[in-house]
Amino acid sequence: MARPSKREQLIDAAYDHFHEHGFNGSGVKDITDAAGVPKGTFYNHFESKEALAVEVMRRYAAAQCTEMLADESMAPFERVRAHFAHLAAGLARFDYARGCMLGNFGVELSTQSTAIREAVDESFNCWVSFLASALEEACATGSLASPVGGVRLARFLANSWEGAAARAKVTRSRGPVDDFAAVLESLAA
Amino acid sequence: MARPSKREQLIDAAYDHFHEHGFNGSGVKDITDAAGVPKGTFYNHFESKEALAVEVMRRYAAAQCTEMLADESMAPFERVRAHFAHLAAGLARFDYARGCMLGNFGVELSTQSTAIREAVDESFNCWVSFLASALEEACATGSLASPVGGVRLARFLANSWEGAAARAKVTRSRGPVDDFAAVLESLAA
Repeated sequence: MARPSKREQLIDAAYDHFHEHGFNGSGVKDITDAAGVPKGTFYNHFESKEALAVEVMRRYAAAQCTEMLADESMAPFERVRAHFAHLAAGLARFDYARGCMLGNFGVELSTQSTAIREAVDESFNCWVSFLASALEEACATGSLASPVGGVRLARFLANSWEGAAARAKVTRSRGPVDDFAAVLESLAA
Repeated sequence: MARPSKREQLIDAAYDHFHEHGFNGSGVKDITDAAGVPKGTFYNHFESKEALAVEVMRRYAAAQCTEMLADESMAPFERVRAHFAHLAAGLARFDYARGCMLGNFGVELSTQSTAIREAVDESFNCWVSFLASALEEACATGSLASPVGGVRLARFLANSWEGAAARAKVTRSRGPVDDFAAVLESLAA
């Protein structure tokens, strides 16, 4: 296997560091040390820590597998259930202590960085649009009862998920995720 | 009127600064400058920036008026509605850009500070317990339909509210708050 490039080593190290310690809790030196790359070379690869964070966040968003919400081999509500189970497994992997990077960056950096705020917004909207399609399909096929409609429910559930992930980060427990799953289940017609 | 003490001036300045810029985005010097207090005197009043943040967070939590959820002059579901309208007005005051300080601190600092994580958790649990009582009463009097019960619904809604506040901070808009209100309304029996 080819050795990963220094750029990739930096992205991998930053991914972990940002997820655990946040943007402001991760110095460039922390990241270059973790990547085993000289600090002085950081700016050969990225214009700024902010530019690295945007790249990391896009990779994080891609790993959330929103496209499984469009997998027609499963019934629409099944896909929604499976998708949130996938996200829950992602939180469990770090004992709920890291939360969701999209939500973390949105809260920590929306005042501080327009570039990160816009990247969070873009990833979030993409996720919500996949979720809305699956929920609308579930409504249309009668497997979901939503008095507010599929699109609004998608936005609400995505935000609720972020709230549950944030709360799980505080309590270091799966309780908030279980509460989310129970309410989601209660929507199944 | 008596002049506020230096300690109170520091708390007021930190309240605003932490709410807008977060904990890591607010240096001790930013706070003492905003308070008009010499930087060198900060540690006469607080052991650490962390200790100040715990005090600020308690004041923020108190300003959320959770006790209105126990106001028996209103019907239980009315109280819940009025309480979230009060929280929504708090977000609107800063054009949704600041979010909820409880949620912000929980996300930003849970890995970094045990004291703040525990203070967030305590305030949150207190809020949820008021909310759960009102929702259980609303279930008992038939004004709310909750297949998951009042207590679990309270935890879910509190987390969902935090998610909506966080999303409103990213989008700088009331949309997420309106989505939350619409779903809350749909629960009224």
